[in-house]
Amino acid sequence: MRIDLNADVGESFGVYRLGSDTGIMPHITSASVACGFHAGDPGVMRETMALARLNGVAVGVHPGYPDLVGFGRRPMKATVREIEDMVVYQIGAAAATAAAQGIHLQHVKAHGALYTAAAEDRGIADAIARAVAAVDRSLIVFGPPNSQLLRAGDHATLRTAVEAFADRAYDSRGQLVGREQGGAVLHDPSVVAARVVRMVREQVIIAIDGSVLSMRADTICVHGDTPGAADLAAEMRRALIEAGVAVMAVGARG
Amino acid sequence: MRIDLNADVGESFGVYRLGSDTGIMPHITSASVACGFHAGDPGVMRETMALARLNGVAVGVHPGYPDLVGFGRRPMKATVREIEDMVVYQIGAAAATAAAQGIHLQHVKAHGALYTAAAEDRGIADAIARAVAAVDRSLIVFGPPNSQLLRAGDHATLRTAVEAFADRAYDSRGQLVGREQGGAVLHDPSVVAARVVRMVREQVIIAIDGSVLSMRADTICVHGDTPGAADLAAEMRRALIEAGVAVMAVGARG
Amino acid sequence: MRIDLNADVGESFGVYRLGSDTGIMPHITSASVACGFHAGDPGVMRETMALARLNGVAVGVHPGYPDLVGFGRRPMKATVREIEDMVVYQIGAAAATAAAQGIHLQHVKAHGALYTAAAEDRGIADAIARAVAAVDRSLIVFGPPNSQLLRAGDHATLRTAVEAFADRAYDSRGQLVGREQGGAVLHDPSVVAARVVRMVREQVIIAIDGSVLSMRADTICVHGDTPGAADLAAEMRRALIEAGVAVMAVGARG
Amino acid sequence: MRIDLNADVGESFGVYRLGSDTGIMPHITSASVACGFHAGDPGVMRETMALARLNGVAVGVHPGYPDLVGFGRRPMKATVREIEDMVVYQIGAAAATAAAQGIHLQHVKAHGALYTAAAEDRGIADAIARAVAAVDRSLIVFGPPNSQLLRAGDHATLRTAVEAFADRAYDSRGQLVGREQGGAVLHDPSVVAARVVRMVREQVIIAIDGSVLSMRADTICVHGDTPGAADLAAEMRRALIEAGVAVMAVGARG
Repeated sequence: MRIDLNADVGESFGVYRLGSDTGIMPHITSASVACGFHAGDPGVMRETMALARLNGVAVGVHPGYPDLVGFGRRPMKATVREIEDMVVYQIGAAAATAAAQGIHLQHVKAHGALYTAAAEDRGIADAIARAVAAVDRSLIVFGPPNSQLLRAGDHATLRTAVEAFADRAYDSRGQLVGREQGGAVLHDPSVVAARVVRMVREQVIIAIDGSVLSMRADTICVHGDTPGAADLAAEMRRALIEAGVAVMAVGARG
Repeated sequence: MRIDLNADVGESFGVYRLGSDTGIMPHITSASVACGFHAGDPGVMRETMALARLNGVAVGVHPGYPDLVGFGRRPMKATVREIEDMVVYQIGAAAATAAAQGIHLQHVKAHGALYTAAAEDRGIADAIARAVAAVDRSLIVFGPPNSQLLRAGDHATLRTAVEAFADRAYDSRGQLVGREQGGAVLHDPSVVAARVVRMVREQVIIAIDGSVLSMRADTICVHGDTPGAADLAAEMRRALIEAGVAVMAVGARG
Repeated sequence: MRIDLNADVGESFGVYRLGSDTGIMPHITSASVACGFHAGDPGVMRETMALARLNGVAVGVHPGYPDLVGFGRRPMKATVREIEDMVVYQIGAAAATAAAQGIHLQHVKAHGALYTAAAEDRGIADAIARAVAAVDRSLIVFGPPNSQLLRAGDHATLRTAVEAFADRAYDSRGQLVGREQGGAVLHDPSVVAARVVRMVREQVIIAIDGSVLSMRADTICVHGDTPGAADLAAEMRRALIEAGVAVMAVGARG
Repeated sequence: MRIDLNADVGESFGVYRLGSDTGIMPHITSASVACGFHAGDPGVMRETMALARLNGVAVGVHPGYPDLVGFGRRPMKATVREIEDMVVYQIGAAAATAAAQGIHLQHVKAHGALYTAAAEDRGIADAIARAVAAVDRSLIVFGPPNSQLLRAGDHATLRTAVEAFADRAYDSRGQLVGREQGGAVLHDPSVVAARVVRMVREQVIIAIDGSVLSMRADTICVHGDTPGAADLAAEMRRALIEAGVAVMAVGARG
């Protein structure tokens, strides 16, 4: 049994700091780095990748919509052509920054509104998959369970990874409970850790209504910008290892 | 005898069109593509590289300062670290866009105020050379004769190319005459073509004061955004070939 | 009988030119000036307003989404709070630029995807009306017939103006025919002029299916970025005056 | 005896938080609000002005260079025309945001590299003064002692205010000691407060070499983005009041 722990990092910009990359990096195995469209800038990208390298964390691209003021969280009606182009661009910017640090990229994980759109809209999902396939077929496409994004990745014969969220509640259909609802975000590290251990060992998760869902994940996302994220990640990692689960980057599976 | 003819292309942005890429592309052998910092966007980059590929034109990166409203022509006091990072980023964005078109990049030519700064300031020149060396040592660094940029490229053991300007007057010290001075820009295609032929064949150019300058160039820049640029390029190419000069991309020299 | 002829102007940006403001300005009576979010920059705004002033054209604000690469034409899911804030901001930027030219603003016309959203979504329409009311209650809100935008303006007890499009086809329900459909855009100046004269004199327009629609407009939009826009505007103005219609800015009605 | 205490506020952007506006606002009398070019966005501007209003703090404009990633701290070679235009624009954006909060602006204080450039370069200083004069002659121009900026404000017959820095060391010529030098920034609140009291009461300040400088200030800047800024401001205000100095906004002097 093995699992990857990932976090979104490199979300600072210019003088602005966001998240606690130094705090979370020792506990994760994959890091998705923002590329300057919704967050990040060339210097932040370099610093973040250097930190990932020091911590032995695999690095991925975290492409988003070109919406800095909205942090890429606002849906935008871009064409699939525009989306493919912007993902190609961001993969390239990340790949060169990684190359300059002696790193090869592991994965692509869309950010925010682009991730949500790609989960549901096959056209957008295919645009992302085409971008990945056109630039570097070794990149692993991250996506939520049963999503169009994973289907598009499979269809493009790319390697994919199913991503679950450790600290988010799921409804009985396996969808994330919206953040605006009570109980949508779990804060207790021991609760989260126990959920994650069960998800990995038994491939099930308890939905918000108590029902038991089948949930097989390759990688688990820890939100880096929430208070206590580092402690949460540390506790998850500890509990997983204690339960006999190997915590390792998805790309290291060979 | 051989020479490369290059032009700055892909300088459109969003709905805005600039230059005549379709007009000039059939006549040049190397194209420097803007990367979204001073001009260009992911879609324009893709279209421009596709056009270059159709025309058999070698493609290079044209990195600039992050100043869209000023078109990268305004000097900015960025640190050498910031410059290295932004050049890495732009090379990567261009490389991925090129890869998606089945193209490998040939060269790096800094744009506008960054080109001017790198010509004179060794710290900035070294930053650009470090960026190129870190990402792709096969990229050829373009720079003006006797510039810090070429020295930095040589020092980093990168391949370099000396760039001259066909339609610009030089002073007796071999410096470009400022655009604000009369006679700084030459418009007559036959005059420009004759200058270029002599530059390539005899490695001299006539300065604005009539003195004869030694000028050995590997590549000659044709400004794509001036009216009549396509005609100028066509006439230069015709005259060069008629004079027995092979017109070919600098990277094709083997 | 009187009518206002308006156009979107000041849509250049930095070195990029768009539209033919100098060509169209002599023929219109109101000009909507972009404010730097989807097009325009501080210098372009000043030049455009100076040109409007010379031509005796009333000046309005043309606020849009913060999407330069998409020219404000891509729907974005901004909150009503964000929209109110961005419209306040853009009105202010335009008002100060106008004040520096000795001009007081006449109107507010939302641009592109924001205009479309405000026509249909009362929450967005109210956000715009609140922004106008908070900054300057003398500003006239432009909107399409029967739109939420006009209702919101009325509700906020702002002065409103019904805007029709001279060169666009309407369907039998009074909605604009989408640009992707054949016949959506009319190009023949004499046809357009005749439509406009009839619209103003008889308050009807012929829909694309031949049915006769009631259409009362206070201002008619001439697209400044289409080829032949200046000629179209000149012909419309000539035909209107010949038909005894006073062509004057909507704010000049007293 | 009276003095104004000012701070730069509203320097957050999108999801990014900077400074401690809620901490410092109770202790200052004037607030300079960033306008979206180097920091700030329409929503942050509104929230900041609302907070200033609640605290009875006078509001000013804090215009900067269009350089979000560099926080407006990087010198840019913009033309005086571009600078005048961008200051007009930013004043307007701030004025409308203020109007929507029922506030009239009090002052204009240039930010970062623009402030430094305007202190030394009369052409840039005049551009700022022209912008202020063109939009609202009631605005007070803040500038450092003996600066070109104050001379330009005087020349334009605008009201001006001499600004000193409480927590920065001055050299014997009355210039700020560069931040890169030891002792350039003072951290001990009681030391800073004593300096400020003496500056206001005796119009002198002790330079870094121990010499006594004449220093007459109308307003004293407290840096809002340094740790402990709120405590520093509180201590300064307390010490000033205890010393019989009225702490009040410069525009309230009547």
